[in-house]
Amino acid sequence: MYLLHYAPDNASLIVRLVLDGAGIPYATALVDRTKRQQDSAGYRALNPTGLIPVLETPQGPISETGAILLWLAETHQLAPPPGHPDRPLFLKWLFFLSNTAHADLRQIFYPHQYAPAEAHRGHHEIIAARMLRHFALLETAALQHPQLFAAATPLGVYTIVLARWAALYPPQGPRWFDASAFPALQALARAQEARVETPVVARAEGLGPHPFTRPEQPNPPEGSVL
Amino acid sequence: MYLLHYAPDNASLIVRLVLDGAGIPYATALVDRTKRQQDSAGYRALNPTGLIPVLETPQGPISETGAILLWLAETHQLAPPPGHPDRPLFLKWLFFLSNTAHADLRQIFYPHQYAPAEAHRGHHEIIAARMLRHFALLETAALQHPQLFAAATPLGVYTIVLARWAALYPPQGPRWFDASAFPALQALARAQEARVETPVVARAEGLGPHPFTRPEQPNPPEGSVL
Repeated sequence: MYLLHYAPDNASLIVRLVLDGAGIPYATALVDRTKRQQDSAGYRALNPTGLIPVLETPQGPISETGAILLWLAETHQLAPPPGHPDRPLFLKWLFFLSNTAHADLRQIFYPHQYAPAEAHRGHHEIIAARMLRHFALLETAALQHPQLFAAATPLGVYTIVLARWAALYPPQGPRWFDASAFPALQALARAQEARVETPVVARAEGLGPHPFTRPEQPNPPEGSVL
Repeated sequence: MYLLHYAPDNASLIVRLVLDGAGIPYATALVDRTKRQQDSAGYRALNPTGLIPVLETPQGPISETGAILLWLAETHQLAPPPGHPDRPLFLKWLFFLSNTAHADLRQIFYPHQYAPAEAHRGHHEIIAARMLRHFALLETAALQHPQLFAAATPLGVYTIVLARWAALYPPQGPRWFDASAFPALQALARAQEARVETPVVARAEGLGPHPFTRPEQPNPPEGSVL
């Protein structure tokens, strides 16, 4: 049995949708960000970066969203395995999502962790332009490799959760992401929303009735997004 | 036979040291950055991001340094395989190197891609402080898991090449990385330098006689770093 350390609408959402999409049983442990539990000694022992999520497994704790997805994919046959002809494509896009798209989007969530306060506006514009180029690459990849980017798969879920956040962040800032410019990603949003696990997860984390086709600010029943 | 598309002292260096360290045969193809060959249609067909390296394999081209390392590790038994008890640790640190340490260090190489010009000084200070925290985590990880972070292994090489660049970049900027604060990484630098393949690769890319223990600006015999 796995234990997923999560906070609502955090990167744990990506892992949760993949677990539920594959019917893999797990329990959840809320990381209460209002109490900064991610900085507690107990949590740091699981993950020295303090980032969410951690998945506890029979082989020990795993952190880093991409690493968790890869480990789950290997363990439960959720993606092309080692030796499969699509393995290079799968790995390349998983790392791109992690080290480029997610890493840059994080700068839009937390600009103070990256740029001086007086430069946040210019920083946002630069990073938003980068993100739109990343989404254009993901749109093409989703068109070219629909099985790899299908709903409920590691690449499909990772992509569509990043698109959700692009539509919502920064909460008070300019709207910079227009989903209609990315029709393949819009189709993926509809497909993910049509799956039975999506409303269950959305209710648990307060994501509203249309978390991918019409994202709204989360209103979690427990815990806190930030 | 593999074909590694490389530029001197670019991220291809990480792949090259792992390939040579394992005795895996490959050919190289220089990407001439002075002619911006990474933006050519041919190169973009191999890797739509235009980033270096690409490794051409019998299963097609792979890009993203972390993805290449993982694929090589799986194909040539260079790291704990799927199912191994150390697999979670290996994946977690590989993703951390890729999406956090390397992604942040890239901002020190190319600040204009991330922050407005008038904010570069403040941006540098913030990112350098982040990087020192990342290296502190890597130092602890290298102490706790010396086999996983050994010379010539994917995690060991990735870590020590990032430390090389931390000592060199920005070329005209303030020195912010003091290797002596990280004794486990210094030991790794000595171990990597003691391996037979290191001077061969260093000569090919113009890295000088002590590329890890006393890094100096590269002076490549062909091609260009930037």
